[in-house]
Amino acid sequence: MRILIGIEYLGTAYCGWQKQKNGISVQETLTEALSALTQENITLHASGRTDAGVHAICQTAHFDTQTVIPVDKLPYAVNKMLPNDIAIKHAKAVREDFHARFDAISKTYVYKIYLCPHKSPIREHTHCHIPCPLDITAMQDAAKIIVGEHDFKCFQNAGGNIKDTVRKIYGLQVASVEDEIHIEVSGNGFLYNMVRIIAGTLVYAGRGKLSIEDIKDALINKDRTKAGKTLEAKGLYLKCVEYADTQLDL
Amino acid sequence: MRILIGIEYLGTAYCGWQKQKNGISVQETLTEALSALTQENITLHASGRTDAGVHAICQTAHFDTQTVIPVDKLPYAVNKMLPNDIAIKHAKAVREDFHARFDAISKTYVYKIYLCPHKSPIREHTHCHIPCPLDITAMQDAAKIIVGEHDFKCFQNAGGNIKDTVRKIYGLQVASVEDEIHIEVSGNGFLYNMVRIIAGTLVYAGRGKLSIEDIKDALINKDRTKAGKTLEAKGLYLKCVEYADTQLDL
Repeated sequence: MRILIGIEYLGTAYCGWQKQKNGISVQETLTEALSALTQENITLHASGRTDAGVHAICQTAHFDTQTVIPVDKLPYAVNKMLPNDIAIKHAKAVREDFHARFDAISKTYVYKIYLCPHKSPIREHTHCHIPCPLDITAMQDAAKIIVGEHDFKCFQNAGGNIKDTVRKIYGLQVASVEDEIHIEVSGNGFLYNMVRIIAGTLVYAGRGKLSIEDIKDALINKDRTKAGKTLEAKGLYLKCVEYADTQLDL
Repeated sequence: MRILIGIEYLGTAYCGWQKQKNGISVQETLTEALSALTQENITLHASGRTDAGVHAICQTAHFDTQTVIPVDKLPYAVNKMLPNDIAIKHAKAVREDFHARFDAISKTYVYKIYLCPHKSPIREHTHCHIPCPLDITAMQDAAKIIVGEHDFKCFQNAGGNIKDTVRKIYGLQVASVEDEIHIEVSGNGFLYNMVRIIAGTLVYAGRGKLSIEDIKDALINKDRTKAGKTLEAKGLYLKCVEYADTQLDL
């Protein structure tokens, strides 16, 4: 039986989703718990990686199992074995050839910023701090330039080895929520650090450091140095992963 | 010079505001930073204690100092010396006989609950988890009973040695915010664990475990056993402290 799970995690303590030598990953923590529960060697296939410190509201992954535990009881059973910063929120049986990564048609990320002169301890691990006001209208105008199909090479950091850097951004909203700005972006795929660079570029637009023309130039010239900074990991959340089969929406 | 400060903290790592033998307190952490900065023996007087694990959006405290550091620069200077879970957000010079506790006319607390079948790792330290639906209308109706001046002995846990248990609740709102319920309460004073017991009583009302009549009876009979459970510390925030002089609102 193949099972698709939806996973929430606070990424603060982890080296990211992917198993690595230099730290504890979400993937290995979850794999160990699932393997211990099912008494099988579970292999988890996620929708994609998340970097160190990045959170997930609903990351997806699939695995195969022969377990007799009913699928709807699985989250309760696994969550008891997981640390408090990882939890399975959903579990569904899927067809045997379903793949959490290859069947994904879009992903949605949220980037959360708070705008106060001083740091906010309550939001220390979950938001990025920008200690100056931002022009939200300028950010919204800049966002419109980024929506659509473009070569997003200017929004990719070194470390991403992908040659085809064309991606389609379906939506990019900039919303003001009390003293915070939430940037929500969905697209058919994202390059290395792309969401954090988009957020950094919108922040520069909001500070008057980049104009609409500057951002257009960065896209056309595929020039990383003309886009904004890569904002910190801790403000980033993988919100959801969409599949063509809406029955699989978690 | 007497200075009033507004302090935000994530209470997770602390034994509470008050200095204690069995853990690190917010008070001593802040006192050490202020003393190191000013090279004086600073004594901090807060608006009141908060318990272990309780957070503050804006706790207030005053202290006396001869420092030459301008008051508006003080938060920046102290925050560099504080751990990431404590920050000074505001600092104001006040009259020499001002007292953060005795001059307070009201305090406002917020209690945050999320309602999901499974735990939410992102909200692990900042919210209380109730894994079942709550009838928010029943909670709002119950809240109306609690507003006003009453003997709140039924909402006090053992450990509070206060004899006069009459307090005035100015407002008690129950709001639905996405998958969360936020309870906001302001009053002229609060007994030991009173906000967490009010929140627990409202949750019991929302689950149909306590009726309006039950809550009236608990108040009239001053019977702690008839009120709801004391909810966990981690969902509670001291939001603000009000003074008669609105110039001091932080």
